[in-house]
Amino acid sequence: MKVVLGKDLLAANENKAAKNRELFDQAGILVVNLISSPGSGKTTLLEKTARFLGGDLKMGAIVGDLYTDRDARRLSEAGMVTVQINTEGVCHLDAKMVARALQEMPMVSLDLLFIENVGNLVCPAAFDLGEHVKVAVLSVAEGTDKPAKYPGIFRESGAVVINKSDLLPYTDFNVKNCLDDLRGIKENMAIFITSAKTGEGIDQWCKWLRESKGNMI
Amino acid sequence: MKVVLGKDLLAANENKAAKNRELFDQAGILVVNLISSPGSGKTTLLEKTARFLGGDLKMGAIVGDLYTDRDARRLSEAGMVTVQINTEGVCHLDAKMVARALQEMPMVSLDLLFIENVGNLVCPAAFDLGEHVKVAVLSVAEGTDKPAKYPGIFRESGAVVINKSDLLPYTDFNVKNCLDDLRGIKENMAIFITSAKTGEGIDQWCKWLRESKGNMI
Repeated sequence: MKVVLGKDLLAANENKAAKNRELFDQAGILVVNLISSPGSGKTTLLEKTARFLGGDLKMGAIVGDLYTDRDARRLSEAGMVTVQINTEGVCHLDAKMVARALQEMPMVSLDLLFIENVGNLVCPAAFDLGEHVKVAVLSVAEGTDKPAKYPGIFRESGAVVINKSDLLPYTDFNVKNCLDDLRGIKENMAIFITSAKTGEGIDQWCKWLRESKGNMI
Repeated sequence: MKVVLGKDLLAANENKAAKNRELFDQAGILVVNLISSPGSGKTTLLEKTARFLGGDLKMGAIVGDLYTDRDARRLSEAGMVTVQINTEGVCHLDAKMVARALQEMPMVSLDLLFIENVGNLVCPAAFDLGEHVKVAVLSVAEGTDKPAKYPGIFRESGAVVINKSDLLPYTDFNVKNCLDDLRGIKENMAIFITSAKTGEGIDQWCKWLRESKGNMI
Protein backbone atom coordinates (compact mmCIF):
# COMPACT_ATOMS: atom_id res chain seq x y z
CA MET A 1 0.00 0.00 0.00
CA LYS A 2 2.73 2.37 1.05
CA VAL A 3 4.83 1.64 -2.01
CA VAL A 4 1.92 2.00 -4.46
CA LEU A 5 0.95 5.35 -3.01
CA GLY A 6 4.62 6.38 -3.08
CA LYS A 7 4.84 5.55 -6.79
CA ASP A 8 1.56 7.38 -7.52
CA LEU A 9 2.80 10.45 -5.68
CA LEU A 10 6.12 10.44 -7.54
CA ALA A 11 4.35 9.91 -10.91
CA ALA A 12 2.00 12.85 -10.21
CA ASN A 13 5.07 14.91 -9.29
CA GLU A 14 6.80 13.96 -12.57
CA ASN A 15 3.78 15.17 -14.58
CA LYS A 16 3.67 18.46 -12.77
CA ALA A 17 7.46 18.85 -13.11
CA ALA A 18 7.22 18.32 -16.89
CA LYS A 19 4.66 21.14 -17.07
CA ASN A 20 6.91 23.44 -15.06
CA ARG A 21 9.79 22.63 -17.41
CA GLU A 22 7.66 23.52 -20.44
CA LEU A 23 6.93 26.91 -18.89
CA PHE A 24 10.64 27.47 -18.18
CA ASP A 25 11.59 26.54 -21.75
CA GLN A 26 8.92 28.79 -23.26
CA ALA A 27 10.20 31.69 -21.16
CA GLY A 28 13.84 30.86 -22.01
CA ILE A 29 14.90 30.75 -18.35
CA LEU A 30 17.63 28.47 -17.01
CA VAL A 31 16.35 26.91 -13.79
CA VAL A 32 18.72 25.59 -11.10
CA ASN A 33 17.53 23.50 -8.12
CA LEU A 34 19.98 23.99 -5.22
CA ILE A 35 20.08 21.15 -2.68
CA SER A 36 22.20 20.79 0.46
CA SER A 37 22.28 20.12 4.19
CA PRO A 38 21.11 22.94 6.45
CA GLY A 39 23.84 25.54 6.80
CA SER A 40 25.99 24.77 3.74
CA GLY A 41 25.73 28.41 2.66
CA LYS A 42 23.20 28.25 -0.22
CA THR A 43 21.73 31.68 0.52
CA THR A 44 25.11 33.39 0.87
CA LEU A 45 26.23 31.74 -2.39
CA LEU A 46 23.14 33.15 -4.14
CA GLU A 47 23.72 36.60 -2.62
CA LYS A 48 27.23 36.62 -4.11
CA THR A 49 25.89 35.28 -7.42
CA ALA A 50 23.30 38.07 -7.55
CA ARG A 51 26.04 40.66 -7.08
CA PHE A 52 28.44 39.05 -9.56
CA LEU A 53 25.97 38.48 -12.41
CA GLY A 54 23.35 41.10 -11.56
CA GLY A 55 24.62 43.61 -14.13
CA ASP A 56 24.08 41.19 -17.03
CA LEU A 57 21.38 38.73 -16.08
CA LYS A 58 17.99 39.12 -14.44
CA MET A 59 17.62 36.59 -11.65
CA GLY A 60 14.82 35.21 -9.54
CA ALA A 61 14.65 32.79 -6.63
CA ILE A 62 11.97 30.52 -5.25
CA VAL A 63 12.96 29.88 -1.66
CA GLY A 64 11.79 26.85 0.27
CA ASP A 65 11.80 26.97 4.05
CA LEU A 66 9.91 25.08 6.71
CA TYR A 67 8.54 28.25 8.33
CA THR A 68 10.61 31.45 8.09
CA ASP A 69 11.22 33.96 5.28
CA ARG A 70 14.77 34.94 6.33
CA ASP A 71 16.48 33.63 3.19
CA ALA A 72 13.93 35.17 0.80
CA ARG A 73 14.39 38.56 2.45
CA ARG A 74 18.18 38.29 2.09
CA LEU A 75 17.88 37.45 -1.62
CA SER A 76 15.42 40.30 -2.26
CA GLU A 77 17.93 42.67 -0.71
CA ALA A 78 20.61 41.24 -3.03
CA GLY A 79 18.44 42.18 -6.02
CA MET A 80 16.68 38.94 -6.89
CA VAL A 81 12.94 38.68 -7.56
CA THR A 82 11.91 36.24 -4.83
CA VAL A 83 8.90 34.12 -3.99
CA GLN A 84 8.76 32.34 -0.64
CA ILE A 85 7.37 28.84 -0.16
CA ASN A 86 6.75 27.79 3.44
CA THR A 87 6.43 24.02 3.50
CA GLU A 88 5.00 24.04 7.07
CA GLY A 89 7.31 21.28 8.21
CA VAL A 90 7.46 19.26 4.97
CA CYS A 91 11.06 18.17 4.31
CA HIS A 92 11.32 18.99 0.57
CA LEU A 93 9.78 21.07 -2.22
CA ASP A 94 7.60 19.32 -4.81
CA ALA A 95 6.64 20.34 -8.34
CA LYS A 96 3.14 21.43 -7.29
CA MET A 97 4.49 23.88 -4.69
CA VAL A 98 6.81 25.31 -7.34
CA ALA A 99 3.94 25.58 -9.89
CA ARG A 100 1.99 27.62 -7.36
CA ALA A 101 4.97 29.89 -6.67
CA LEU A 102 5.47 30.43 -10.42
CA GLN A 103 2.12 32.20 -10.59
CA GLU A 104 3.72 35.03 -8.62
CA MET A 105 7.02 35.00 -10.56
CA PRO A 106 7.40 37.40 -13.55
CA MET A 107 9.05 34.72 -15.67
CA VAL A 108 9.33 36.50 -19.03
CA SER A 109 11.59 39.14 -17.51
CA LEU A 110 14.09 36.61 -16.11
CA ASP A 111 17.22 34.89 -17.43
CA LEU A 112 18.00 32.65 -14.46
CA LEU A 113 15.76 31.17 -11.80
CA PHE A 114 17.15 29.50 -8.68
CA ILE A 115 15.07 27.18 -6.55
CA GLU A 116 16.60 27.09 -3.08
CA ASN A 117 15.30 23.84 -1.65
CA VAL A 118 14.67 23.02 2.03
CA GLY A 119 17.95 22.22 3.85
CA ASN A 120 18.01 18.41 3.55
CA LEU A 121 20.54 16.23 1.74
CA VAL A 122 18.20 13.25 1.37
CA CYS A 123 14.53 13.86 0.51
CA PRO A 124 14.76 16.69 -2.08
CA ALA A 125 16.83 14.42 -4.37
CA ALA A 126 13.72 12.34 -5.18
CA PHE A 127 11.55 15.25 -6.36
CA ASP A 128 11.95 16.68 -9.86
CA LEU A 129 10.72 20.29 -9.76
CA GLY A 130 11.05 20.85 -13.51
CA GLU A 131 14.54 22.37 -13.15
CA HIS A 132 17.16 22.04 -15.89
CA VAL A 133 19.89 21.11 -13.46
CA LYS A 134 20.28 20.15 -9.81
CA VAL A 135 23.29 21.57 -7.98
CA ALA A 136 24.44 20.01 -4.70
CA VAL A 137 26.14 22.37 -2.25
CA LEU A 138 28.48 20.90 0.38
CA SER A 139 30.31 22.83 3.09
CA VAL A 140 33.86 21.71 3.86
CA ALA A 141 32.90 21.80 7.56
CA GLU A 142 30.56 18.84 6.93
CA GLY A 143 33.47 16.50 6.26
CA THR A 144 35.01 14.66 3.33
CA ASP A 145 32.74 11.61 3.59
CA LYS A 146 29.43 13.21 2.58
CA PRO A 147 29.38 12.13 -1.11
CA ALA A 148 30.08 8.52 -0.08
CA LYS A 149 27.44 8.62 2.67
CA TYR A 150 24.70 10.45 0.71
CA PRO A 151 25.34 9.40 -2.91
CA GLY A 152 21.76 9.94 -4.14
CA ILE A 153 21.85 13.70 -4.45
CA PHE A 154 25.35 13.77 -5.96
CA ARG A 155 24.31 11.23 -8.61
CA GLU A 156 21.31 13.44 -9.52
CA SER A 157 23.34 16.64 -9.73
CA GLY A 158 24.88 18.28 -12.79
CA ALA A 159 27.24 20.31 -10.64
CA VAL A 160 28.60 20.34 -7.09
CA VAL A 161 29.69 23.42 -5.15
CA ILE A 162 32.18 22.69 -2.35
CA ASN A 163 31.58 25.79 -0.24
CA LYS A 164 33.15 27.52 2.79
CA SER A 165 36.65 26.90 1.43
CA ASP A 166 37.82 29.64 3.83
CA LEU A 167 37.42 27.00 6.59
CA LEU A 168 39.74 24.49 4.86
CA PRO A 169 42.78 25.34 7.04
CA TYR A 170 40.75 24.63 10.21
CA THR A 171 39.08 21.34 9.23
CA ASP A 172 40.15 17.80 8.28
CA PHE A 173 38.41 18.13 4.90
CA ASN A 174 40.45 16.38 2.19
CA VAL A 175 39.69 17.97 -1.19
CA LYS A 176 41.40 15.25 -3.22
CA ASN A 177 39.52 12.40 -1.53
CA CYS A 178 36.22 14.25 -1.90
CA LEU A 179 36.84 14.86 -5.61
CA ASP A 180 37.78 11.18 -6.07
CA ASP A 181 34.55 10.09 -4.37
CA LEU A 182 32.49 12.50 -6.52
CA ARG A 183 34.14 11.25 -9.75
CA GLY A 184 33.42 7.70 -8.59
CA ILE A 185 29.72 8.48 -8.18
CA LYS A 186 29.40 10.33 -11.49
CA GLU A 187 31.79 11.36 -14.26
CA ASN A 188 31.43 14.66 -16.11
CA MET A 189 30.19 16.68 -13.19
CA ALA A 190 31.09 20.37 -12.92
CA ILE A 191 32.75 20.96 -9.54
CA PHE A 192 33.46 24.35 -7.98
CA ILE A 193 35.40 25.11 -4.82
CA THR A 194 34.05 28.36 -3.44
CA SER A 195 33.90 30.60 -0.42
CA ALA A 196 30.77 32.69 -0.50
CA LYS A 197 32.42 34.64 2.33
CA THR A 198 35.72 35.61 0.67
CA GLY A 199 34.48 35.30 -2.91
CA GLU A 200 36.91 32.53 -3.91
CA GLY A 201 35.69 30.56 -6.93
CA ILE A 202 32.52 32.64 -7.40
CA ASP A 203 33.81 33.76 -10.82
CA GLN A 204 34.10 30.15 -12.05
CA TRP A 205 30.67 29.24 -10.71
CA CYS A 206 29.12 32.31 -12.37
CA LYS A 207 30.95 31.58 -15.64
CA TRP A 208 29.40 28.10 -15.65
CA LEU A 209 25.92 29.56 -14.98
CA ARG A 210 26.35 32.05 -17.84
CA GLU A 211 27.54 29.32 -20.23
CA SER A 212 24.76 26.95 -19.20
CA LYS A 213 22.25 29.72 -19.90
CA GLY A 214 23.95 30.39 -23.26
CA ASN A 215 23.78 26.71 -24.23
CA MET A 216 19.99 26.76 -23.87
CA ILE A 217 19.45 28.74 -27.06
CA MET B 1 -5.76 9.47 1.70
CA LYS B 2 -2.21 10.62 2.17
CA VAL B 3 -2.94 12.14 5.59
CA VAL B 4 -4.84 9.07 6.83
CA LEU B 5 -2.04 6.76 5.80
CA GLY B 6 0.45 9.14 7.39
CA LYS B 7 -1.44 9.00 10.69
CA ASP B 8 -1.69 5.19 10.55
CA LEU B 9 2.03 4.92 9.92
CA LEU B 10 2.85 7.26 12.80
CA ALA B 11 0.43 5.42 15.14
CA ALA B 12 2.03 2.07 14.24
CA ASN B 13 5.42 3.65 14.91
CA GLU B 14 4.27 4.92 18.33
CA ASN B 15 3.17 1.40 19.33
CA LYS B 16 6.47 -0.10 18.30
CA ALA B 17 8.36 2.71 20.06
CA ALA B 18 6.47 2.06 23.30
CA LYS B 19 7.55 -1.60 23.12
CA ASN B 20 11.17 -0.59 22.55
CA ARG B 21 10.96 1.73 25.58
CA GLU B 22 9.64 -1.12 27.75
CA LEU B 23 12.65 -3.23 26.78
CA PHE B 24 15.02 -0.35 27.57
CA ASP B 25 13.42 0.21 30.98
CA GLN B 26 13.52 -3.49 31.85
CA ALA B 27 17.21 -3.58 30.99
CA GLY B 28 17.85 -0.32 32.89
CA ILE B 29 19.56 1.33 29.91
CA LEU B 30 19.40 5.05 29.21
CA VAL B 31 18.71 5.51 25.49
CA VAL B 32 19.67 8.70 23.62
CA ASN B 33 18.49 9.44 20.04
CA LEU B 34 21.05 11.77 18.38
CA ILE B 35 19.67 13.90 15.52
CA SER B 36 21.45 16.46 13.34
CA SER B 37 22.27 17.65 9.83
CA PRO B 38 24.87 15.62 7.93
CA GLY B 39 28.36 16.52 9.12
CA SER B 40 27.59 18.07 12.52
CA GLY B 41 30.05 15.68 14.15
CA LYS B 42 27.76 13.12 15.85
CA THR B 43 30.17 10.22 15.35
CA THR B 44 33.22 12.13 16.59
CA LEU B 45 31.20 13.27 19.63
CA LEU B 46 30.33 9.63 20.39
CA GLU B 47 33.97 8.55 19.92
CA LYS B 48 35.02 11.12 22.55
CA THR B 49 32.13 10.08 24.80
CA ALA B 50 33.20 6.43 24.56
CA ARG B 51 36.71 7.36 25.64
CA PHE B 52 35.60 9.69 28.44
CA LEU B 53 32.99 7.41 30.04
CA GLY B 54 34.25 4.02 28.86
CA GLY B 55 35.96 3.21 32.15
CA ASP B 56 32.70 3.48 34.12
CA LEU B 57 29.81 2.78 31.80
CA LYS B 58 29.18 0.11 29.17
CA MET B 59 27.95 1.76 25.98
CA GLY B 60 26.33 0.64 22.77
CA ALA B 61 25.31 2.40 19.55
CA ILE B 62 22.74 1.68 16.87
CA VAL B 63 23.97 3.58 13.83
CA GLY B 64 21.64 4.65 11.03
CA ASP B 65 23.12 5.35 7.61
CA LEU B 66 21.67 5.35 4.12
CA TYR B 67 24.22 2.85 2.80
CA THR B 68 27.68 2.77 4.42
CA ASP B 69 29.01 1.35 7.72
CA ARG B 70 31.78 3.92 8.24
CA ASP B 71 30.35 5.39 11.44
CA ALA B 72 29.61 1.99 13.00
CA ARG B 73 33.18 0.88 12.36
CA ARG B 74 34.53 4.05 14.01
CA LEU B 75 32.38 3.50 17.11
CA SER B 76 33.37 -0.17 17.38
CA GLU B 77 36.99 0.91 17.35
CA ALA B 78 36.21 3.41 20.13
CA GLY B 79 34.91 0.54 22.28
CA MET B 80 31.14 0.66 21.79
CA VAL B 81 29.03 -2.38 20.98
CA THR B 82 27.54 -1.33 17.63
CA VAL B 83 24.75 -2.50 15.35
CA GLN B 84 24.45 -0.96 11.88
CA ILE B 85 21.13 -0.12 10.23
CA ASN B 86 21.30 0.67 6.53
CA THR B 87 18.09 2.45 5.58
CA GLU B 88 18.75 1.98 1.82
CA GLY B 89 17.95 5.58 1.06
CA VAL B 90 15.19 6.15 3.65
CA CYS B 91 15.69 9.53 5.33
CA HIS B 92 15.12 8.56 9.00
CA LEU B 93 15.12 5.63 11.40
CA ASP B 94 11.77 4.26 12.62
CA ALA B 95 10.93 2.22 15.70
CA LYS B 96 10.61 -1.03 13.71
CA MET B 97 14.14 -0.73 12.32
CA VAL B 98 15.42 -0.13 15.86
CA ALA B 99 13.44 -3.12 17.22
CA ARG B 100 15.14 -5.33 14.63
CA ALA B 101 18.58 -3.96 15.54
CA LEU B 102 17.89 -4.60 19.24
CA GLN B 103 17.77 -8.34 18.56
CA GLU B 104 21.51 -8.15 17.92
CA MET B 105 22.27 -5.84 20.85
CA PRO B 106 23.34 -7.43 24.21
CA MET B 107 21.13 -5.06 26.20
CA VAL B 108 21.51 -6.46 29.71
CA SER B 109 25.23 -5.75 29.66
CA LEU B 110 24.81 -2.04 28.77
CA ASP B 111 24.32 1.18 30.76
CA LEU B 112 23.90 3.63 27.87
CA LEU B 113 22.65 3.13 24.33
CA PHE B 114 23.03 5.80 21.65
CA ILE B 115 20.95 5.77 18.48
CA GLU B 116 22.82 7.78 15.85
CA ASN B 117 20.08 8.76 13.41
CA VAL B 118 20.44 9.43 9.66
CA GLY B 119 21.91 12.91 9.03
CA ASN B 120 18.73 14.95 8.54
CA LEU B 121 17.44 17.83 10.66
CA VAL B 122 13.80 17.44 9.55
CA CYS B 123 12.35 13.94 9.14
CA PRO B 124 13.83 12.08 12.16
CA ALA B 125 12.09 14.53 14.53
CA ALA B 126 8.69 12.94 13.72
CA PHE B 127 9.67 9.36 14.62
CA ASP B 128 9.78 8.22 18.25
CA LEU B 129 12.20 5.29 18.45
CA GLY B 130 11.48 4.50 22.10
CA GLU B 131 14.42 6.59 23.31
CA HIS B 132 14.35 8.36 26.69
CA VAL B 133 15.68 11.61 25.27
CA LYS B 134 16.38 13.17 21.89
CA VAL B 135 19.56 15.23 21.59
CA ALA B 136 19.98 17.67 18.70
CA VAL B 137 23.56 18.29 17.54
CA LEU B 138 24.35 21.52 15.69
CA SER B 139 27.72 22.52 14.26
CA VAL B 140 28.68 26.19 14.61
CA ALA B 141 29.65 26.10 10.91
CA GLU B 142 25.95 25.66 10.06
CA GLY B 143 25.11 29.18 11.22
CA THR B 144 23.23 30.82 14.07
CA ASP B 145 19.81 30.66 12.41
CA LYS B 146 19.28 26.89 12.46
CA PRO B 147 17.05 26.67 15.59
CA ALA B 148 14.77 29.40 14.17
CA LYS B 149 14.64 27.73 10.75
CA TYR B 150 14.22 24.12 11.92
CA PRO B 151 12.35 24.48 15.23
CA GLY B 152 10.73 21.01 15.18
CA ILE B 153 13.73 19.01 16.26
CA PHE B 154 14.84 21.52 18.90
CA ARG B 155 11.34 21.51 20.43
CA GLU B 156 11.46 17.69 20.64
CA SER B 157 14.93 17.58 22.21
CA GLY B 158 15.85 17.34 25.87
CA ALA B 159 19.36 18.61 25.16
CA VAL B 160 21.26 20.42 22.43
CA VAL B 161 24.96 20.03 21.68
CA ILE B 162 26.50 23.02 19.87
CA ASN B 163 29.52 21.29 18.37
CA LYS B 164 32.71 22.25 16.50
CA SER B 165 33.30 25.17 18.88
CA ASP B 166 36.94 25.13 17.66
CA LEU B 167 35.60 26.79 14.47
CA LEU B 168 33.96 29.69 16.37
CA PRO B 169 36.81 32.16 15.63
CA TYR B 170 36.46 31.53 11.88
CA THR B 171 32.66 31.74 11.50
CA ASP B 172 29.90 34.33 12.05
CA PHE B 173 28.18 32.05 14.57
CA ASN B 174 26.69 34.11 17.41
CA VAL B 175 26.45 31.95 20.53
CA LYS B 176 24.26 34.42 22.46
CA ASN B 177 21.69 34.75 19.66
CA CYS B 178 21.57 30.98 19.17
CA LEU B 179 21.02 30.41 22.91
CA ASP B 180 18.28 33.07 22.94
CA ASP B 181 16.54 31.35 20.00
CA LEU B 182 16.83 27.95 21.70
CA ARG B 183 15.38 29.33 24.98
CA GLY B 184 12.55 30.89 22.94
CA ILE B 185 11.69 27.52 21.41
CA LYS B 186 11.87 25.61 24.71
CA GLU B 187 12.80 26.43 28.29
CA ASN B 188 14.66 23.98 30.50
CA MET B 189 16.79 22.46 27.81
CA ALA B 190 20.30 21.27 28.64
CA ILE B 191 22.76 22.98 26.28
CA PHE B 192 26.41 22.04 25.81
CA ILE B 193 29.04 23.86 23.77
CA THR B 194 31.58 21.28 22.67
CA SER B 195 34.42 20.56 20.34
CA ALA B 196 34.68 16.84 19.71
CA LYS B 197 38.05 17.71 18.12
CA THR B 198 39.74 19.56 21.02
CA GLY B 199 37.64 17.99 23.78
CA GLU B 200 36.12 21.28 24.99
CA GLY B 201 32.86 20.73 26.88
CA ILE B 202 32.98 16.93 26.60
CA ASP B 203 33.25 16.70 30.42
CA GLN B 204 29.98 18.64 30.93
CA TRP B 205 28.16 16.57 28.28
CA CYS B 206 29.39 13.33 29.87
CA LYS B 207 28.45 14.57 33.36
CA TRP B 208 24.89 15.16 32.10
CA LEU B 209 24.76 11.67 30.54
CA ARG B 210 25.96 10.11 33.79
CA GLU B 211 23.42 12.08 35.87
CA SER B 212 20.59 11.28 33.44
CA LYS B 213 21.47 7.59 33.74
CA GLY B 214 21.60 7.95 37.56
CA ASN B 215 18.16 9.59 37.65
CA MET B 216 16.59 6.54 35.96
CA ILE B 217 16.86 4.36 39.04
